[in-house]
Amino acid sequence: MTTPPETQSEEDRKARASRWFAELRDRICAAFEAIEDELAGVNAERFAELAPGRFQRTAWERGGTEGDTDSDSRGGGVMAVLRGRVFEKVGVNISTVSGRFSPDFAKQIPGAEEDPSYWASGISLVAHLRSPLVPAVHMNTRHIVTAKAWFGGGSDLNPMYPDEADTADFHAAFKVACDRHDPDYYPRFKAWCDDYFYIKHRGEARGVGGIFFDYLDSGDWEADFAFTRDVGEAFLEVYPTLVRRHMTEPWTEDQRRHQLVKRGRYTEFNLLYDRGTKFGLMTGGNPEAILMSLPPEAAWP
Amino acid sequence: MTTPPETQSEEDRKARASRWFAELRDRICAAFEAIEDELAGVNAERFAELAPGRFQRTAWERGGTEGDTDSDSRGGGVMAVLRGRVFEKVGVNISTVSGRFSPDFAKQIPGAEEDPSYWASGISLVAHLRSPLVPAVHMNTRHIVTAKAWFGGGSDLNPMYPDEADTADFHAAFKVACDRHDPDYYPRFKAWCDDYFYIKHRGEARGVGGIFFDYLDSGDWEADFAFTRDVGEAFLEVYPTLVRRHMTEPWTEDQRRHQLVKRGRYTEFNLLYDRGTKFGLMTGGNPEAILMSLPPEAAWP
Repeated sequence: MTTPPETQSEEDRKARASRWFAELRDRICAAFEAIEDELAGVNAERFAELAPGRFQRTAWERGGTEGDTDSDSRGGGVMAVLRGRVFEKVGVNISTVSGRFSPDFAKQIPGAEEDPSYWASGISLVAHLRSPLVPAVHMNTRHIVTAKAWFGGGSDLNPMYPDEADTADFHAAFKVACDRHDPDYYPRFKAWCDDYFYIKHRGEARGVGGIFFDYLDSGDWEADFAFTRDVGEAFLEVYPTLVRRHMTEPWTEDQRRHQLVKRGRYTEFNLLYDRGTKFGLMTGGNPEAILMSLPPEAAWP
Repeated sequence: MTTPPETQSEEDRKARASRWFAELRDRICAAFEAIEDELAGVNAERFAELAPGRFQRTAWERGGTEGDTDSDSRGGGVMAVLRGRVFEKVGVNISTVSGRFSPDFAKQIPGAEEDPSYWASGISLVAHLRSPLVPAVHMNTRHIVTAKAWFGGGSDLNPMYPDEADTADFHAAFKVACDRHDPDYYPRFKAWCDDYFYIKHRGEARGVGGIFFDYLDSGDWEADFAFTRDVGEAFLEVYPTLVRRHMTEPWTEDQRRHQLVKRGRYTEFNLLYDRGTKFGLMTGGNPEAILMSLPPEAAWP
């Protein structure tokens, strides 16, 4: 950090963004493993045969695939997956990839119309909990560079049984992070989240919202990067609180069944509508890493 | 049947096709209920608390929805669902709908480029079995009328543990049906099936194939309708044989887990690639009926 920001090159900025995503991943993994250790009471007894979960990391590298028209596509990522006694399955993936978009896909991406080259780095997290009383969650932040450069991301809460205090606390945490940067961010990004995470064919919201932003390029890269970091920090502060609040509560088989049905709806959203899923599959990403978001069990009874 | 075919109007032909789909549905439902009654041995004991399954029918009517730009869209269908002791969940749906395609969707449909009006009728079946040793299956036949008119459909077998004799018998039944009409049909429609039911991002086939055909308009409506009926008859002959062959075999928890994972792949295919699912959701069909194809339980462990 001895180079003043204004003299940093694009390569420096890319490296800083990627490094931050990896650091955030490390801190989230540590926080979730601490929760796995802490579980006590009836639910610790219920899963007495399970050791506290630990993340397993698997690195992958990108090979050229059908969706990727460029033979010099590069990069890869690391999947970190924990299957534990609080977190039934949580994936925290980071990836940094570059290449050239296929002509069709390039049309949909800002700055790629003329030169389809891209660089993309990000962190993506989805947590599916054993308890139907602990909300599932998604969080993602990313930096994408074409002829333009922008940040995107957000986080949304997916309770099986919405709880007013949880919803309020989750939104409050992201509002604080947003307000620190721009008073317009929270209302805009909250509305965008509600709009984005809507399961059109069911006529229902996927969860209780949060924030969603994309194409964020205020003209001040440092400010946008700082905001993106604050979104990660807000997630790390609020979500473990919600998990601890509910993780020791007992649940019934009926509640579990309801959870599996809600997870079915989550699956429908991810496969039918999610842009991150499409982006990943279209750019020759690792399907195991991309589909890590799918629930360990789901039901369409 | 007193009117000679060559003097029949398009309305007569539509009515005959729709009537056939409903008759086939009735015969399939009866055949599957007979299998539910027949189950004996360890698997009947395993599900002793369950009565032999019976189809529940639910009629639905189409209302205008977002995907449907025409206020005079009409029609509806009947979902028939059985949740039993052999069939964990099987849906046999018929529907007859008409309306006007949205401009974007019309571009993809033969004969709809200039006049987006359509009429469509069909039967669609997906069976998910309790036993991981009994193959899941899909079958669909349909008649679609725009400025053009054609038949489409097919059937593919989705075993969790492919069995050479099952695969051979399944293909043989459809080959006989095809060969009765045109020696080119079976090789063409088998290849089309392999191509269509391919899970691109996984680099794997959904199942062991069968036949798939679309836009079938040989110029002889009677012959095409007769072929389409024979596809339904072939299904009705061969699939119950395969179910009976395996339904009394005991299975293990490991085999069940493998089944749930294969069902996850099935779900990925249906939501990411299946044209019938997209067609249904885009034309304001009933999402409950369209997504009836999704498995009662699935896993992404």
